[in-house]
Amino acid sequence: MTAPLAGYTILDLTHVLAGPYCTMTLSDLGAKVIKVEPPETGDDTRAFPPFKDGKSAYFAAINHGKKSIALNLKDAADRAVFEQLLERADVIVENYRPGVMERLGYGWEELHMAYPRLVYGAVSGFGHSGPDAKRPAYDMVVQARGGVMSITGEKDRDPVRVGASIGDIIAGMFLTQGILAALLDRDKTGIGRKIDVAMLDSQLAILEHAVALTTVTGKAPGPSGARHPSITPFETFHASDGLFVIAAGNDKLFEKLCIALNLPLADDPRFATNPARCENARLLKRLIEAVTLDNTRAHWIAKLTAAGIPTGPIQNVEQVMKDPQILARNMVVDVLDKNGRQAYKAAGNPIKMTDAPDPTTRSPAPDLDGNRGEILRWLDEG
Amino acid sequence: MTAPLAGYTILDLTHVLAGPYCTMTLSDLGAKVIKVEPPETGDDTRAFPPFKDGKSAYFAAINHGKKSIALNLKDAADRAVFEQLLERADVIVENYRPGVMERLGYGWEELHMAYPRLVYGAVSGFGHSGPDAKRPAYDMVVQARGGVMSITGEKDRDPVRVGASIGDIIAGMFLTQGILAALLDRDKTGIGRKIDVAMLDSQLAILEHAVALTTVTGKAPGPSGARHPSITPFETFHASDGLFVIAAGNDKLFEKLCIALNLPLADDPRFATNPARCENARLLKRLIEAVTLDNTRAHWIAKLTAAGIPTGPIQNVEQVMKDPQILARNMVVDVLDKNGRQAYKAAGNPIKMTDAPDPTTRSPAPDLDGNRGEILRWLDEG
Repeated sequence: MTAPLAGYTILDLTHVLAGPYCTMTLSDLGAKVIKVEPPETGDDTRAFPPFKDGKSAYFAAINHGKKSIALNLKDAADRAVFEQLLERADVIVENYRPGVMERLGYGWEELHMAYPRLVYGAVSGFGHSGPDAKRPAYDMVVQARGGVMSITGEKDRDPVRVGASIGDIIAGMFLTQGILAALLDRDKTGIGRKIDVAMLDSQLAILEHAVALTTVTGKAPGPSGARHPSITPFETFHASDGLFVIAAGNDKLFEKLCIALNLPLADDPRFATNPARCENARLLKRLIEAVTLDNTRAHWIAKLTAAGIPTGPIQNVEQVMKDPQILARNMVVDVLDKNGRQAYKAAGNPIKMTDAPDPTTRSPAPDLDGNRGEILRWLDEG
Repeated sequence: MTAPLAGYTILDLTHVLAGPYCTMTLSDLGAKVIKVEPPETGDDTRAFPPFKDGKSAYFAAINHGKKSIALNLKDAADRAVFEQLLERADVIVENYRPGVMERLGYGWEELHMAYPRLVYGAVSGFGHSGPDAKRPAYDMVVQARGGVMSITGEKDRDPVRVGASIGDIIAGMFLTQGILAALLDRDKTGIGRKIDVAMLDSQLAILEHAVALTTVTGKAPGPSGARHPSITPFETFHASDGLFVIAAGNDKLFEKLCIALNLPLADDPRFATNPARCENARLLKRLIEAVTLDNTRAHWIAKLTAAGIPTGPIQNVEQVMKDPQILARNMVVDVLDKNGRQAYKAAGNPIKMTDAPDPTTRSPAPDLDGNRGEILRWLDEG
């Protein structure tokens, strides 16, 4: 068993979420990740709630398995250590506002000259080019400006935020892809590249359906509540004890659904094709709910599953973390504390790979500067 | 200029969204992607609305730049062609229901034996292991079961779907990461690996904040509308002509915001710290809106931006596609038709990389079997 990124070293100057999420994935894939943090405060999220035993569970959830050294990049001695780290690193990752690295003398041009093999990954709100490059951004700003809020929520009500921080996380994921692609190339050519990912760009990149619709119709789609905008039935339905989901994505599945619900609608011209079903979605929803309200979610999920129809419950996060399928896939892992005790839970690594370890625990999120001695010794050993 | 994945060949057996999104990224990064489609129908999304000139704009948005050959994998002659393709490929990607590839005689074990260098990427609803491995899933099912719907929407109202198909897309993105990591390793060892990504797992993997909260408090969070659940102010506000976003993520930004709005609240104990602001979020929202309702969105966005406060409009997709920052970053590209005319728009490549081409156009999405001759000649040339 070898992790696919075993042997790679990542110098991690990131903070908050987009950057740390990227380096968490690289760590889960086996890279050695060294967090270089500003002295005293460190990564902002060390102060983010919720806390457990005085430490941020939020920080732990995305920084497990990393090492930390505190360096003041304006101090000569600390810069010398940093430059030794640069010598040893395969990748540097940062999510400062564009221009910060240049002011420190560690912009891409300088780094590329001094360390040609180094891959440089940057993620920022609006990217390193364009009129708004220097503007600050947070998740919420790009969710709003990037379009995803405009298609999320109920019709005729104010748009809502996606509950997960996809403004940050999607950008962090594209950065991970860019870094890995650049390493593939670097391992052949010996020459590193810079990757520049913007949170705003990344939002547009996930709107495939809305982009296609807007292009063809000239009109931007609005929110469609709990329905898919162009597949029916593909939405939530009420059972006697709450909501569940049915996603009958094609005519064959709709036929099966009609049989399972004992509803003679498959040949009805109002519902025989997906365009017709979309047209008559509200009526169809009522006809289906007139049946499903008669029994429980569990009943319908079991019955429809047996009939091969995609269906499922709406689970809260506590339920997801106990879901037998999630547990069978090792998707909830224990983050240990310094004493080896199970201190927090975190999401596991969704990239399951043959011959790669998939541990059920993660070593602790580091204390600020907590691995200084070990890192300095490693540098000395050359 | 060389694309980082130039020289890699991807054999793409995927359909609908999760798999094709993965291979689109690999194509954008320079890999040669050959879509192997079932004869007659091809990828289901060829029949998905919206259409333009009789062709699916949805299909074009995620399949541009790929080649297509139609092969019946139950036919001996077609299997022989497929096996020649396997000889030449670096990666095979599929998103069939688990078991389908095995029934065709192309399961991971067989492929790994015959083509040890081949990397095998699979994405499915629930993964290739666990009690629900064989169940069908669509985006909506995993958005519901995976937790993201439970934190998206308004408090005390039914949960809503995230408007973007993140059930599929996030999984496709994790698969891309896994494939690239496996290639890095394969290029050293000569041995390919299988990557198995589940859409359900991938949903939990993006709930970092909700997972931390649930772990510490024992209670799952609910939806919080257009607010961040634990940072204030970080939400939408009404101006005289509509909604905009303010994301003042820390005390310093809140102080600047108070100055910009001429609101003497920074030293008020009800608002001096983030925990206090979260406690009094509803009151704070009203105090801020009592000011912002007095002028337009454009006024406040300009004023707050000048003060260094993260802010922005809520844009629909049409507005995003015309956003000067998006255009400056080449994030809207033209997909050409066979005659070289600009036929559709698609999202550009969000992974900006030095010395890699970032074209403003994409070659056409292929007709079904549209590259058969070219692909067979390429195989003959060995």
